[in-house]
Amino acid sequence: MGLTIGVDIGGTKIAAGVVDEEGTILDTSKVPTPETPEGVIDAIADAVQSVSAGYDVHAVGIGAAGYVDNKRATVLFAPNINWRHEALKDKVEQRVGLPVVVENDANAAAWGEYRFGAGQGHDDVVCITLGTGLGGGIIIGGKLHRGRFGVAGEFGHIRVVPDGLLCGCGSQGCWEQYASGRALVRYARQRAAATPENAKILLGLGDGTPAAIEGKHISEAARAGDPVAIDSFRELARWAGAGLADLASLFDPSAFIVGGGVSDEGDLVLDPIRKSFRRWLVGNQWRPHAQVLAAQLGSKAGLVGAADLARQG
Amino acid sequence: MGLTIGVDIGGTKIAAGVVDEEGTILDTSKVPTPETPEGVIDAIADAVQSVSAGYDVHAVGIGAAGYVDNKRATVLFAPNINWRHEALKDKVEQRVGLPVVVENDANAAAWGEYRFGAGQGHDDVVCITLGTGLGGGIIIGGKLHRGRFGVAGEFGHIRVVPDGLLCGCGSQGCWEQYASGRALVRYARQRAAATPENAKILLGLGDGTPAAIEGKHISEAARAGDPVAIDSFRELARWAGAGLADLASLFDPSAFIVGGGVSDEGDLVLDPIRKSFRRWLVGNQWRPHAQVLAAQLGSKAGLVGAADLARQG
Amino acid sequence: MGLTIGVDIGGTKIAAGVVDEEGTILDTSKVPTPETPEGVIDAIADAVQSVSAGYDVHAVGIGAAGYVDNKRATVLFAPNINWRHEALKDKVEQRVGLPVVVENDANAAAWGEYRFGAGQGHDDVVCITLGTGLGGGIIIGGKLHRGRFGVAGEFGHIRVVPDGLLCGCGSQGCWEQYASGRALVRYARQRAAATPENAKILLGLGDGTPAAIEGKHISEAARAGDPVAIDSFRELARWAGAGLADLASLFDPSAFIVGGGVSDEGDLVLDPIRKSFRRWLVGNQWRPHAQVLAAQLGSKAGLVGAADLARQG
Amino acid sequence: MGLTIGVDIGGTKIAAGVVDEEGTILDTSKVPTPETPEGVIDAIADAVQSVSAGYDVHAVGIGAAGYVDNKRATVLFAPNINWRHEALKDKVEQRVGLPVVVENDANAAAWGEYRFGAGQGHDDVVCITLGTGLGGGIIIGGKLHRGRFGVAGEFGHIRVVPDGLLCGCGSQGCWEQYASGRALVRYARQRAAATPENAKILLGLGDGTPAAIEGKHISEAARAGDPVAIDSFRELARWAGAGLADLASLFDPSAFIVGGGVSDEGDLVLDPIRKSFRRWLVGNQWRPHAQVLAAQLGSKAGLVGAADLARQG
Repeated sequence: MGLTIGVDIGGTKIAAGVVDEEGTILDTSKVPTPETPEGVIDAIADAVQSVSAGYDVHAVGIGAAGYVDNKRATVLFAPNINWRHEALKDKVEQRVGLPVVVENDANAAAWGEYRFGAGQGHDDVVCITLGTGLGGGIIIGGKLHRGRFGVAGEFGHIRVVPDGLLCGCGSQGCWEQYASGRALVRYARQRAAATPENAKILLGLGDGTPAAIEGKHISEAARAGDPVAIDSFRELARWAGAGLADLASLFDPSAFIVGGGVSDEGDLVLDPIRKSFRRWLVGNQWRPHAQVLAAQLGSKAGLVGAADLARQG
Repeated sequence: MGLTIGVDIGGTKIAAGVVDEEGTILDTSKVPTPETPEGVIDAIADAVQSVSAGYDVHAVGIGAAGYVDNKRATVLFAPNINWRHEALKDKVEQRVGLPVVVENDANAAAWGEYRFGAGQGHDDVVCITLGTGLGGGIIIGGKLHRGRFGVAGEFGHIRVVPDGLLCGCGSQGCWEQYASGRALVRYARQRAAATPENAKILLGLGDGTPAAIEGKHISEAARAGDPVAIDSFRELARWAGAGLADLASLFDPSAFIVGGGVSDEGDLVLDPIRKSFRRWLVGNQWRPHAQVLAAQLGSKAGLVGAADLARQG
Repeated sequence: MGLTIGVDIGGTKIAAGVVDEEGTILDTSKVPTPETPEGVIDAIADAVQSVSAGYDVHAVGIGAAGYVDNKRATVLFAPNINWRHEALKDKVEQRVGLPVVVENDANAAAWGEYRFGAGQGHDDVVCITLGTGLGGGIIIGGKLHRGRFGVAGEFGHIRVVPDGLLCGCGSQGCWEQYASGRALVRYARQRAAATPENAKILLGLGDGTPAAIEGKHISEAARAGDPVAIDSFRELARWAGAGLADLASLFDPSAFIVGGGVSDEGDLVLDPIRKSFRRWLVGNQWRPHAQVLAAQLGSKAGLVGAADLARQG
Repeated sequence: MGLTIGVDIGGTKIAAGVVDEEGTILDTSKVPTPETPEGVIDAIADAVQSVSAGYDVHAVGIGAAGYVDNKRATVLFAPNINWRHEALKDKVEQRVGLPVVVENDANAAAWGEYRFGAGQGHDDVVCITLGTGLGGGIIIGGKLHRGRFGVAGEFGHIRVVPDGLLCGCGSQGCWEQYASGRALVRYARQRAAATPENAKILLGLGDGTPAAIEGKHISEAARAGDPVAIDSFRELARWAGAGLADLASLFDPSAFIVGGGVSDEGDLVLDPIRKSFRRWLVGNQWRPHAQVLAAQLGSKAGLVGAADLARQG
């Protein structure tokens, strides 16, 4: 099978792209994300039809946030769109006349990295995506591990602090409250408020108040030596690395891939994560260690992965 | 292939058994566990030779505590026996003249339950063994998930309390410090010391002091309505159930199997674990729920599972 | 000195009362709480002048939420009113022509209970107020312990869970996030969402959804035997009692007084708090135990206490 | 009253000293600490009689670990000596013919620092002693705060981590498990085991194994720039400073004094504690901050303080 289409449903834009067998994106189309559930389906169909013009495409893969059932057809629950048991596969197939596969977006991104990015050469890979929240995807023996009901790999919501921070999921102490872009900003704001004399560079990048600190400021300030920014990355890494150590105890992959916006900072964040991972890896002198790799495909991993999953049928 | 031998290396006894294709144990032989690493190998060989007399056996499966490498040949590290990179497969094969497969004991027990016990009819199963510690085993798509390096499924040592209790593994806050037979005894002793008036039955089963409380007392006292004993089981269940909820987020199996000595108490402990599991299952109204089942093979699961893994080669 | 006036600044109403030397309220006046800082001062003056008509009053005591300086004159910081270094004493004195004493509201309530309520007969008392949040007051040797800077007794914001729930104060894991009326409602809502079958009575008192659960429902449901409501009180008591045990290690009073709306439920909440207190009291078999008493003055404790502090000058 | 004697009961030695009104030690006598409870009383009497020869002494103050009753006469419970409701005052008075006052050793040390050390000029002081464990003492309005039953100021056993490390007191998560000399060694050993490449200096001061790391090595290695040693002090400071912030919310002193062997390192440990204190101090921009001072009397604080408390009767 030749070309397929990958679709990535983001909070502000829906992107569709024609992808070849090497994972190369030949063409893309973007439309704003509508507010209504039905509007999103229309927009997906429009984007697919728009981008596929002139290409001989065979299938469509859609990466969607939320729980996708084990037939890869229905979105059981989406956190940001009001989809509840939404028959996404059927609805889009009727509109675009192509076979459609629906996949959790973090699973799609993990698959993309496994096939065409940092995971090449590995058969057992666990990916975490440190974006606004924390997502995950698991490759075991070269296959995407979806779980019996399709909802495996929801790493962001394992409990790492009993009675910890409230999470949007309704639970407390979820990992993504401690290891994510949102957590990084919280760390920086709290520290800057408590010890502004150690956050002069960081505070100077915004309007001088802790509330104005954004993720991009933290990266820039850390590179410039700001103590609060550096300490915020270290705190993030403490939680990310400790969680990877737990995932090693559970899945025992040969490599972890760390993606998401936070990982764009490369070794600034990867190195402390690696240290923390080794620090917390149980029995670390008696076992081979998984590698901790930076993702390579950036924000395109989900689209490319979804397209490839559609190709595989 | 017909009959195989399963070996279970316990802290006090080494048991070998001839097992048929249905998982039935035809004959067993037990010897005391020697203190030296070499002695253990001798004892394994003796037990195997003793029990196999008169049977046409084809292979030997050994369940051993600790890390076993991905060739199922070498024990990388054993917590209770001084084995470090011990070539167990080769040494036993030389002694008994049969093909040998080495497996982590909790993996072997999980496999036993999957094939012949509570896991029958399921393809995706996660087992936890609540014994003195907490062990685990994972079946995905009908296959034992061993991990890239052979050390997957070490559930006992995921961190559930940051800065929590010291663990024998050198880390802190490991799950087995909160959900295991040893944890149950600690809960009961602490509560009986603080509020002896609520532990009259429980204390009466020993010598009246908290230090004399043992696991069997707690079960008996709980059945007799002792408030401290009941509360101790509830505390154990809080931690066990919350951990299963995390495993559901990660692996998404169709069933959990709870084994080990603690599970012998059946619904006394299983029901509170089920409640706690549902309480902590993220998105529990939007997804199918895995069943939480009691193990069926008791202490024989490991021997039967090891024998069957040897049969499968 | 005979009669004095106590003022209680609440979120919706400001109450002023004429109080005699026995702590009896002879007359009260209430006005709605204005939205502007200056408006609040006007309202205090109005309420004082209104209620004092016809009485020979000598001084005014004002209980205010927030930090009050050690001269009992200036509100350094108020969480709900936009007061920052507000010279409350001077401003009100100019308006009402009487000596004014400003006190933290929880300190005033503690003093009221010490002088005329549950604390009578004790010289060393620690009070906690389980209202929307958690406030505290300390009596040592018959004197209110205000601290060197006037801000002692801020129990609500000691850290009981590292990396725990976010608090309005900007910190994390503060005690009032786990032991307060707001916490009680959170416990009930979380449990009712996870296990609605155990919350039938509780859910039936609102509109059937967890979000509609209010504090009064939980009390009523607990008395009717609703498992989730009972368990929610137990969770509250776990945290309240453990915190009292810490306060015993620090202050070693002869009695604790538990006030605030939650304590209106009497033994329904006091008994589990007492159990939890003993459970966590370090060295509990080697030391005399402080009593844990229910407050007696209800919502009037602050007003009566403020009036009495004004009398003492 | 002129000269008095202070007695300090340590784990290996009992020291008695003649102390004048300025807190100067004129003479001292040391004897090994006997193993039996009665032997300790004999040794105290011997040391007192030996050191007082030639001096006109009027009273004896004894600092003892454990709970001392509110008459300062009876040791209710001692952790290291088998004293249970031991009438120490009466027994020693009979032997030495002088009035005796018994005081908790950390209280005595706090009093010593308040009168003659870092606390001079302050009326409201909270001391913590970071020795093997963590002790505390409280001065309020120039008086030692002993509590209603004599057991106030047991800071070491407030719970800072729910379900945390086991403590010798039988509870879990006590502050002294996270902020004490013993904790510092644990931090260093754990980190050196996990990342030996960052602990080369530190490991080189012992026999190269983590288990051989002692407190003195950590100080020396930290001064030489060893990353693990520095990080271990930082971890200690995180917990010490956060606890001081809680004590500020509770007691609101004008100064904290940090004593004990760990504080001998001066700013190496004090500076990170100060940072952490400010980081966690609730409302830190709205309130005056207590100073965090290093103790000045070293290991003599207890002896000097006990002598002075005896003088005051």
